[in-house]
Amino acid sequence: MKLLYATLLIRLFHMKHRSLDTMNCSLARTLEIVGEWWSLLIIREALWGTARFDMFQSRLGIARNILTNRLTHLEQHGILAKTASAENRRIYDYRLTEKGSDLFTSILAIMQWGDRWIHQEQGPPIQFFEKSSGKEVRQLLVAGPSGRRVAIGNLDIRPGPGAEPATVRRAERAKDEVRTGS
Amino acid sequence: MKLLYATLLIRLFHMKHRSLDTMNCSLARTLEIVGEWWSLLIIREALWGTARFDMFQSRLGIARNILTNRLTHLEQHGILAKTASAENRRIYDYRLTEKGSDLFTSILAIMQWGDRWIHQEQGPPIQFFEKSSGKEVRQLLVAGPSGRRVAIGNLDIRPGPGAEPATVRRAERAKDEVRTGS
Repeated sequence: MKLLYATLLIRLFHMKHRSLDTMNCSLARTLEIVGEWWSLLIIREALWGTARFDMFQSRLGIARNILTNRLTHLEQHGILAKTASAENRRIYDYRLTEKGSDLFTSILAIMQWGDRWIHQEQGPPIQFFEKSSGKEVRQLLVAGPSGRRVAIGNLDIRPGPGAEPATVRRAERAKDEVRTGS
Repeated sequence: MKLLYATLLIRLFHMKHRSLDTMNCSLARTLEIVGEWWSLLIIREALWGTARFDMFQSRLGIARNILTNRLTHLEQHGILAKTASAENRRIYDYRLTEKGSDLFTSILAIMQWGDRWIHQEQGPPIQFFEKSSGKEVRQLLVAGPSGRRVAIGNLDIRPGPGAEPATVRRAERAKDEVRTGS
């Protein structure tokens, strides 16, 4: 019974891996790289300045083998860069690349959703402020370069230049079905 | 050998589940609910108007047992609401709640990261525009109610009202270490 469950888990694991990286969808292909619990938490730690294996390990309470595996994966995808540390050439620093730092917006979006819907009673554990003004940082959806704020009910979905034929059909069909508010 | 690998996978699975929902972090606790490939893709489909089990199944190419499991999970967490359809009371509609629709910002952030870093050659498969103006929708980090745009190097991290003592210490230590640009 345990073996059956285990075999099923392995199959699910491979099934997910096969299908996502061929999907014509930036969300699916990004999730393939970072859409797993530990990856985004490792990137969060790196954004906060953690660079050494042992510090990632103790700050996240993550098993060493999983951490090794995740750091290698993120390095292979160009999200973290590994360099020998200045003090000791046998110790490595993992730093976010530009591609990695650019995940900050996604992390903030997910974190602030959690602040609103999971942590609403206690209030946010962590907040971000603009250094110069001291004002709290929020995310906005804006339209065009002028930066006018967009109401969520006023969104239109369209196939982009990278759309394959099936995506074009799917987007056209979704046009009138889009739900962005309850 | 296969059994060893399988047992390891099961242990990883449980280990992840135990640690995240007790972390004093809105990112970790949100990932516990939606930080898995299929959940966010199901929510994306629901945002695009998909409501029926069979449509989720064919549009995502997801196995029926995984889909059943994920829909139940999202319903239990108040992200989807299940109602008998108007035409046939034996068929159910899954619609996003307000809590679920509010994940749109997170999905857009992740999707646009993928557009920039994975799909950059082909261009975005899908784009969002403001209906009334026809202008493309982007995300901005803004400070305060006036909505002034924040430079990513100008971010300050602080413990919030929901911070536990360890989070306060962690945030204070992170203050000078924060990396938000390469």
